[in-house]
Amino acid sequence: MRSRIGIGLIGFGTIGTGVVKLLSQHQGLLRERVGVPLELVKIADIDLERPRGVKVKPGSLTREATEVIHHPGVDVVIELIGGIEPAKGFILEALRAGKPVVTANKALLAQEGREILDVLRETNQELGFEASVGGGIPIVKAMREGLVANSYKYIYGIINGTSNYVLTMMETEGLSFQEALTDAQAKGYAEADPALDISGVDAAHKAAILATMAFGRYFSLSEVYVEGLEGMDLRDIRYAKELGYRVKLLALIKGGPQVEIRVHPTLIPSDHSLAKVDGVFNAIYIEGDAVGPTMFYGQGAGEMPTASAVVADIVDIARDLLKGVRRRVPPFSYENLERDVQVKPMDEVVTRYYMRFTAQDRPGVLSKISGILAKRGISIESVIQKGRRERGTVPVVMMTHEAKERDVRLALSEIDNLEVIGGKTVLLRVEDGRRRC
Amino acid sequence: MRSRIGIGLIGFGTIGTGVVKLLSQHQGLLRERVGVPLELVKIADIDLERPRGVKVKPGSLTREATEVIHHPGVDVVIELIGGIEPAKGFILEALRAGKPVVTANKALLAQEGREILDVLRETNQELGFEASVGGGIPIVKAMREGLVANSYKYIYGIINGTSNYVLTMMETEGLSFQEALTDAQAKGYAEADPALDISGVDAAHKAAILATMAFGRYFSLSEVYVEGLEGMDLRDIRYAKELGYRVKLLALIKGGPQVEIRVHPTLIPSDHSLAKVDGVFNAIYIEGDAVGPTMFYGQGAGEMPTASAVVADIVDIARDLLKGVRRRVPPFSYENLERDVQVKPMDEVVTRYYMRFTAQDRPGVLSKISGILAKRGISIESVIQKGRRERGTVPVVMMTHEAKERDVRLALSEIDNLEVIGGKTVLLRVEDGRRRC
Repeated sequence: MRSRIGIGLIGFGTIGTGVVKLLSQHQGLLRERVGVPLELVKIADIDLERPRGVKVKPGSLTREATEVIHHPGVDVVIELIGGIEPAKGFILEALRAGKPVVTANKALLAQEGREILDVLRETNQELGFEASVGGGIPIVKAMREGLVANSYKYIYGIINGTSNYVLTMMETEGLSFQEALTDAQAKGYAEADPALDISGVDAAHKAAILATMAFGRYFSLSEVYVEGLEGMDLRDIRYAKELGYRVKLLALIKGGPQVEIRVHPTLIPSDHSLAKVDGVFNAIYIEGDAVGPTMFYGQGAGEMPTASAVVADIVDIARDLLKGVRRRVPPFSYENLERDVQVKPMDEVVTRYYMRFTAQDRPGVLSKISGILAKRGISIESVIQKGRRERGTVPVVMMTHEAKERDVRLALSEIDNLEVIGGKTVLLRVEDGRRRC
Repeated sequence: MRSRIGIGLIGFGTIGTGVVKLLSQHQGLLRERVGVPLELVKIADIDLERPRGVKVKPGSLTREATEVIHHPGVDVVIELIGGIEPAKGFILEALRAGKPVVTANKALLAQEGREILDVLRETNQELGFEASVGGGIPIVKAMREGLVANSYKYIYGIINGTSNYVLTMMETEGLSFQEALTDAQAKGYAEADPALDISGVDAAHKAAILATMAFGRYFSLSEVYVEGLEGMDLRDIRYAKELGYRVKLLALIKGGPQVEIRVHPTLIPSDHSLAKVDGVFNAIYIEGDAVGPTMFYGQGAGEMPTASAVVADIVDIARDLLKGVRRRVPPFSYENLERDVQVKPMDEVVTRYYMRFTAQDRPGVLSKISGILAKRGISIESVIQKGRRERGTVPVVMMTHEAKERDVRLALSEIDNLEVIGGKTVLLRVEDGRRRC
């Protein structure tokens, strides 16, 4: 029986510092829960000078990640530098050195996960990635273990805090997209370069990971349909509200003969639990065929919430090491990630739509628009048209019944070519949520 | 390596039937996730005649629980008969026969858990009890593993669906307590004898289990302060609403040098996430020192949600059996359940209060009441007094600042003896929630 578990950390940034703090603050508590001490043995970072407000043992710092990986006292390697390289190289090197790995690196898993999975199988090693989705929310464990008896029907996630903060500020404070983003940056919620968050790509990384666990075959970022918040107009948030909806950047995953995996701004009913998730909070709604609707809620980012997830993974692996077992739970929930599951092409997706047309203020426009929609079999549920002119044009807002994406796109390209249309039509998708929760 | 995991079921009632259904429906899916088939070998129930709408293998039914326990093909024993005896005897017999056990039996764990724990340790066996709290919500796993890096500060649970349904119907439909309860019974949400639910004892059982996992020493039902919904008056729900609160039967668990474990009707702010949990849904809000506020939401009862939790436990144990390990995770989160943790006596609890006095409609009453409160150091935050007479008395509603329970009780017993008071004062506690989530 091992008398301790040695931890090596690569990446002493915000989350890394949180992990160091947590291991130190809860040394006693963790020992009571795990049975032996978790001991931080070695830390690598390119910057060893920056003050981080935590004490580490003298001699434990290094600029060389390989010193961490190959240190004989290191039983588990934590990768917290993010990005593809050199993170991937370090993870593969650690696995091949016979050491289990914990990471928060969603980009790597969603883009190069196939290679990581191959090496995991080849080395019969473990990978913890609880921190890669939903920050401190133990959603990976819930999907992989807690809800293991379920076939997943619907997974809806608000899994990017920055974009949710921006949308919340637009709606509640009436800020423009740019104003809200600037505010998020000023408050430290958004990176100097917020592109990954705002474009929806960060949420898509996470959606790919959730879908892989749900359906048992590897999904990469390239299979996720993504639209971001760029160009989001306050007017659409207001019209949505008038119609009883809120706009959220939602990751939608749906089971079926062909699965759907998409991330885009989405109208959801104001009384759905997800609609009430504001600011930087994350929430994942999961509907399983046995459990019904469930929701998991918490802080999706930040030093200590994310560190909470990293340390949970360390404990999970420590418990396996202490019992001398490996891969007790398959990293992505299935023993074999080769299930025959296809992604439904976006053109085939059927959903409800919100459309805002920029119409010339002339008679007959509404009839032309609705005529083209009708020709494609798209039926209109409700219309808002108000007298208010904007430089000779009026906004016409329509909610449709269920329609096929391809038909909607064809109809809109025809409509946008009409002489009476003064600008590109805004198209948003609507999700009514399944059973309310 | 085992080629299958054999399951024995004691109790073929609602949940037991759900487990049988789930194991059959998801035979293939579970095999893909676990690696080997989960095979239902033997089922015991006193009633073998009742049609249950599921097919079982011929010869697998018996009236004798011991046949299940000692069947050589049974690797895991599921106890779903509930209550203290004979459930306890069966569980102890299974453990002593070297078989891990899965149960949904909160009453047993909260009342006789000490003995079960002793036998678990003595036999070095496992016990799964995910289904005992929050139905299908994987809250036991979350507390024991997903949030293992946290010291628990606050746990607030809406963990009895029947009482939450009753309160929801009172508030939204304006029903009296008795009308709402009759409705719950008609809809099948409440038992013919709803005493355990309405009295708060069912929630207290669950609170004792959550506190045991949170703080690392066994807490029994007798250490939980309990008040139920009996006599809940619609007027108080309405006044609470006017003050910006909703009334929920809340389980409150607070960390500290002395911990608090109590269940009672509680005013919580209307904009707190817990306040929006309606009907038969359950939710558990957990604030950990690292993760911050989190919330877990879902159906707290019912055939399939509860079966989802039972089968998750079966899978957890199956994975241990397949790897040949035992007690990889301590059943109640700590290796040793002997931590020195005291429960704060209810008299010492400090909280805010809602009081409704039944005052004679005479001058000077308010000054008498507030004088007695002031003498005990209880300061008033707000008062609602309206002209409306009820048989010569008027309701006077007060919200206090934080005060000590003992002082409040002493003050109320003095006030209730005043000649100008026409009935027993209604006392409810207020919880502002910690950080909103």
